[in-house]
Amino acid sequence: MPDPVATAPGSDTVSIAMSAQSIITLLTDFGTQDYFVGAMKGVILSANPAAQIVDLTHDIPPQNIHAGAFNLLAVYRDFPRGTIHVAVVDPGVGSNRRPILIECANQLFVGPDNGIFSWICEREGNWRAYHLTNEKFFLQPNSKTFHGRDVFAPVAAALANGAKPEEVGPVIDTIVELESLNPMTTNDGKIEGCIIHIDRFGNCVTNFTANHLCADNRASWLRVNQIEINSFREFFSEDSGTENDLFMFLGSAGFIEIAVRNASAANVLNAHDGQSVVLVTGATHQKITSS
Amino acid sequence: MPDPVATAPGSDTVSIAMSAQSIITLLTDFGTQDYFVGAMKGVILSANPAAQIVDLTHDIPPQNIHAGAFNLLAVYRDFPRGTIHVAVVDPGVGSNRRPILIECANQLFVGPDNGIFSWICEREGNWRAYHLTNEKFFLQPNSKTFHGRDVFAPVAAALANGAKPEEVGPVIDTIVELESLNPMTTNDGKIEGCIIHIDRFGNCVTNFTANHLCADNRASWLRVNQIEINSFREFFSEDSGTENDLFMFLGSAGFIEIAVRNASAANVLNAHDGQSVVLVTGATHQKITSS
Amino acid sequence: MPDPVATAPGSDTVSIAMSAQSIITLLTDFGTQDYFVGAMKGVILSANPAAQIVDLTHDIPPQNIHAGAFNLLAVYRDFPRGTIHVAVVDPGVGSNRRPILIECANQLFVGPDNGIFSWICEREGNWRAYHLTNEKFFLQPNSKTFHGRDVFAPVAAALANGAKPEEVGPVIDTIVELESLNPMTTNDGKIEGCIIHIDRFGNCVTNFTANHLCADNRASWLRVNQIEINSFREFFSEDSGTENDLFMFLGSAGFIEIAVRNASAANVLNAHDGQSVVLVTGATHQKITSS
Repeated sequence: MPDPVATAPGSDTVSIAMSAQSIITLLTDFGTQDYFVGAMKGVILSANPAAQIVDLTHDIPPQNIHAGAFNLLAVYRDFPRGTIHVAVVDPGVGSNRRPILIECANQLFVGPDNGIFSWICEREGNWRAYHLTNEKFFLQPNSKTFHGRDVFAPVAAALANGAKPEEVGPVIDTIVELESLNPMTTNDGKIEGCIIHIDRFGNCVTNFTANHLCADNRASWLRVNQIEINSFREFFSEDSGTENDLFMFLGSAGFIEIAVRNASAANVLNAHDGQSVVLVTGATHQKITSS
Repeated sequence: MPDPVATAPGSDTVSIAMSAQSIITLLTDFGTQDYFVGAMKGVILSANPAAQIVDLTHDIPPQNIHAGAFNLLAVYRDFPRGTIHVAVVDPGVGSNRRPILIECANQLFVGPDNGIFSWICEREGNWRAYHLTNEKFFLQPNSKTFHGRDVFAPVAAALANGAKPEEVGPVIDTIVELESLNPMTTNDGKIEGCIIHIDRFGNCVTNFTANHLCADNRASWLRVNQIEINSFREFFSEDSGTENDLFMFLGSAGFIEIAVRNASAANVLNAHDGQSVVLVTGATHQKITSS
Repeated sequence: MPDPVATAPGSDTVSIAMSAQSIITLLTDFGTQDYFVGAMKGVILSANPAAQIVDLTHDIPPQNIHAGAFNLLAVYRDFPRGTIHVAVVDPGVGSNRRPILIECANQLFVGPDNGIFSWICEREGNWRAYHLTNEKFFLQPNSKTFHGRDVFAPVAAALANGAKPEEVGPVIDTIVELESLNPMTTNDGKIEGCIIHIDRFGNCVTNFTANHLCADNRASWLRVNQIEINSFREFFSEDSGTENDLFMFLGSAGFIEIAVRNASAANVLNAHDGQSVVLVTGATHQKITSS
């Protein structure tokens, strides 16, 4: 990840003009059965009754920071300049983990410093982070169990109301990072990536993109757990005559995914989040199999 | 279903005036665990930050076009003139199924041409359909797996911004239709309908309406799977002394439903979507049972 | 609960100024799979297209009035003055239970008279209730199965549009009340409360607040089902060396909760809603254990 100070965004990025009706998105692992999400919305609307609050999802599996990071990564570019994203998957709430604000891609990101924003920062390169320390923006009294309501929601509302990032706290140089989004090339010419997300259908999202594949997709293979996936489809309902076989496709988040029609690829592969996936392109593959 | 050209709506319908804050509803089978719904919202808000986005439901059972069609049918009349409904239950995404826009009932309907809007068109009679072919309204690049984000959301946002239906593509004369909403009268005087929806409580929604019943509701019977339902209740908590018996009631979507208090009527009846239901009115019933 | 007439709010409360973009919250047990919530939103937006509709939750366990009451209690103070809360957990719909409006805490509450608002009234003291009888505010025709759409949503929209509480129906002196929110002091100096909510993680919310504890939290004990809980934590991830033990903490709704990290306290305690909880403070405890 580039040094955030060396690559700090210019003044254009720093002073994002907030629209009259600011968009504030919410992504949490709170579920929808309890009052938690409603409380965050109430706090935001108390400060900014015209805020456009958008639920991204509240069904991130509890405490699964990677799932939160992936879903936000998949969606932030669809939102307009100036959008404020609040992401609360926060197993460390109440401990000394830092609450942070990140400026990146002409948007603002508010949440815990536990890696949930690191893939976005890594992809964008340019970002600046702030440690939320100015308690005048927090709800009082401030609980130790619910920073979504007491810290992140009111800070987001204040930013929507025109508060400057510099006001919420000091710039910090480093943030907690998840493992890299970028696959690595190994000495023998293979590219090693991993599964960064398994969706509710069992599709396995890898960190390979279309750029990693051969121009002819059909000359690229993936290997997971000794299983080789060498079929590529353009879309799900494609009639390929191989109903129950594993196949690759370019997922809508921009990554290569592994799927089985009408079944869970994760189950078929016995795969888990973070698991190694090796990409073999035509030439390499020949070399390996002929050796 | 009437010929759409012969019965095409007048210019009044064609040019629905969009309000400053257009209402765009979303109905999908995407679930709420992943980024899919958030992506659609981001695309809409990027084009129209003031859009009033309304989640109808994202929990349509995966690929269940009938369930999508029923829930939209049950609710569109509650929305104001000019509302834009986006419905994405789309097992054929990426194939040659057509993306369409329908003008009907002074509202606009955007989604795949797979029957999801056909019950509304059948009930209303007057409608006009367009094939979405003008790619200037689509997101670029356009995926083959997620037309909710790449086709339907941006087209809805463009319509909310004032694009005319004529601009999105050519008028088409036919759309894919589900089986008819209207029960049929058989030669022996019975009326044969079917179960068009089973809700999450197991209540079975038929395609009979209050008009099909005798003036005295208690002189009408339903038969499903050789089981006769001859009790009619005004409301659920009605004390009828028959706690565990099947009964009919007029559901809030305007159709006769079959229910059991505190149990699933679908289980008791061993019923499924599309299953035949015969309505027997007093006179007919007597004839049958006395023969 | 204080006499509502004797303690009726002043004219300041009675005429809550509605903002241009009124906030209307929805809390129901309708789930999100069917059209019910969408229908309520459509009715509200048909009357008031600029309404800011906020989903609190639609996943209250079916017919669980206590869970509805608790979640609304936990959240209403986070919303601004003038907010209209619509709460529909309504097993008695269609029977002679009354539809009501309550003015309380500079907000409005619309729903069935079954106790769902009684904890808020009890806590606030000052409130005024109205029986919704003026059918000009209802949807026509009015169903006997779906007052959320046909009564409560249109009344809320009318209030957002400026209708006065006096217009919706006559003031009523009493409302249905749940058991009291306040623990009772017993003759032997113990304080007896109860479990008012069990959340989806199995945390048991009691009706004790921080005020009931000793200044030194660690000198207070809870007893449930003969099990004593005498550990107090500031936050969940606190490292106390007792991973699997029951502990108390001050929950974000302002009540003392009983939890086990990574397990369900309700299961460990074999506890249920409404179950008795005894609070023993240091002095009392000594007395008891030394006797």
